[in-house]
Amino acid sequence: MKLSLLGSGNVRGCPVYGCDCPACQRAILDPSKARLLCSAMLEVNGQQIIIDASHPQLQTRFPAGSIDAILLTHFHMDHVQALFELRWGLCDAIPVYHPDDPLGCDDLFKHPGILDFQPALAAMQTFQLANISVTPLALNHSKPTLGYLFSSEKGRIAYLTDTLGIPDKSWQQLLRRAPKYVVIDCSTSPLHSSSNHNNLNDVLELAHALPDSTWVLTHIGHDLDEYLMQHPKCLPSNVLVGHDELCLSL
Amino acid sequence: MKLSLLGSGNVRGCPVYGCDCPACQRAILDPSKARLLCSAMLEVNGQQIIIDASHPQLQTRFPAGSIDAILLTHFHMDHVQALFELRWGLCDAIPVYHPDDPLGCDDLFKHPGILDFQPALAAMQTFQLANISVTPLALNHSKPTLGYLFSSEKGRIAYLTDTLGIPDKSWQQLLRRAPKYVVIDCSTSPLHSSSNHNNLNDVLELAHALPDSTWVLTHIGHDLDEYLMQHPKCLPSNVLVGHDELCLSL
Ligand SMILES: [Mn+2]
Ligand SMILES: [Mn+2]
Ligand SMILES: [Mn+2]
Ligand SMILES: [Mn+2]
Ligand SMILES: [Zn+2]
Ligand SMILES: [Zn+2]
Repeated sequence: MKLSLLGSGNVRGCPVYGCDCPACQRAILDPSKARLLCSAMLEVNGQQIIIDASHPQLQTRFPAGSIDAILLTHFHMDHVQALFELRWGLCDAIPVYHPDDPLGCDDLFKHPGILDFQPALAAMQTFQLANISVTPLALNHSKPTLGYLFSSEKGRIAYLTDTLGIPDKSWQQLLRRAPKYVVIDCSTSPLHSSSNHNNLNDVLELAHALPDSTWVLTHIGHDLDEYLMQHPKCLPSNVLVGHDELCLSL
Repeated sequence: MKLSLLGSGNVRGCPVYGCDCPACQRAILDPSKARLLCSAMLEVNGQQIIIDASHPQLQTRFPAGSIDAILLTHFHMDHVQALFELRWGLCDAIPVYHPDDPLGCDDLFKHPGILDFQPALAAMQTFQLANISVTPLALNHSKPTLGYLFSSEKGRIAYLTDTLGIPDKSWQQLLRRAPKYVVIDCSTSPLHSSSNHNNLNDVLELAHALPDSTWVLTHIGHDLDEYLMQHPKCLPSNVLVGHDELCLSL
């Protein structure tokens, strides 16, 4: 089982359009430091599952027939924008799993094209996908949002974005199942806080409480990148800064 | 005054994801035949005005500070999708002109960021932009949609998409002002018809009735491209097939 971050940036990406902060300037000079909008891919048992659809070259990177399923965390535009063109493809339908959000985004439900929207998922109702178990975990965000816990015989990976904190039932599940990796929304430095997203302190608290997991930061904003440039040693050993194309293998 | 097509494709673009028709195969082998989603740029009097916002590299192509205004034809996703990331830029606000559509698209009006949405435009109410006259022209589409007639002392260019036919008042305006170029929605071959878009026969009729203008096809679907491959001589001399990066200068 391999989880790859296709993008590790927040809604603004990095470099932010027009920003001259040190993190954005670094990303312009060194594209390996740039961050696309947040999305990921899970490869397991010969199947490719896209987690959120924001990659700007999704159709080129994943030719028709290569996407076995799409898992959506929520229907904010920065997580679904690539679906609007993908849906008009001429190929087999792609099953799309998603939280219970009757509005979806714009006219996706009205004109799904090749997107085969499945019945809404419910938190904690584990289902099988590509011969592994997937447990949706409720998150705290401004839209109905689910994280996912992937369990194969090799171990477990949790993917949790967008969220502020982790609701108790989801947290109990993480404690019980002890994932090797927890990929987690960490949008801002400790200098900022949000009602919808973790900042670094929020994540460090979680990581401290579940120390045997490796916590991988994603949905990273430019101010967190700048903070990490200024505080290169601020992270404990079980916290890793995610980057585009980072692969986590079990 | 120079109008450049940034994209000349319909909602599917070309190649269509997963399509193996001759037009899509040609576009894969020869990227100069590919079509991005429909949008354009007007350069006049030292200013750059974007017409619709669907270019996939809009932020790279137009660095912060280089977009003087955005003109929207309508709020379908294939015409506004690039605004969702652009809006979170950190730079001066960009005035956005648009038809009267109180819903806009998704949460653009609720979270405009740097997009400075102007009061809705009304058809036939000419206004000044970059020291030229811009006349919004009502079009026939499934959302409130405006075309634009640009008039400088060098002459006139009309940009009319998305539309089926041209409503009478807009048509009278074209007859009276005789644009040098009319860029027009021509989504499909004569083998298909739509309630929202012109097919080639619809456009040929219009071009016949206004023969002194050069009619430039845009918003082109793959089936029209295939038809044109099979019927290379089907167009009268005042009808031109648009392509990405085509420049029309006055
Ligand atoms: Mn997000
Ligand atoms: Mn979100
Ligand atoms: Mn369109
Ligand atoms: Mn349209
Ligand atoms: Zn920045
Ligand atoms: Zn095709």
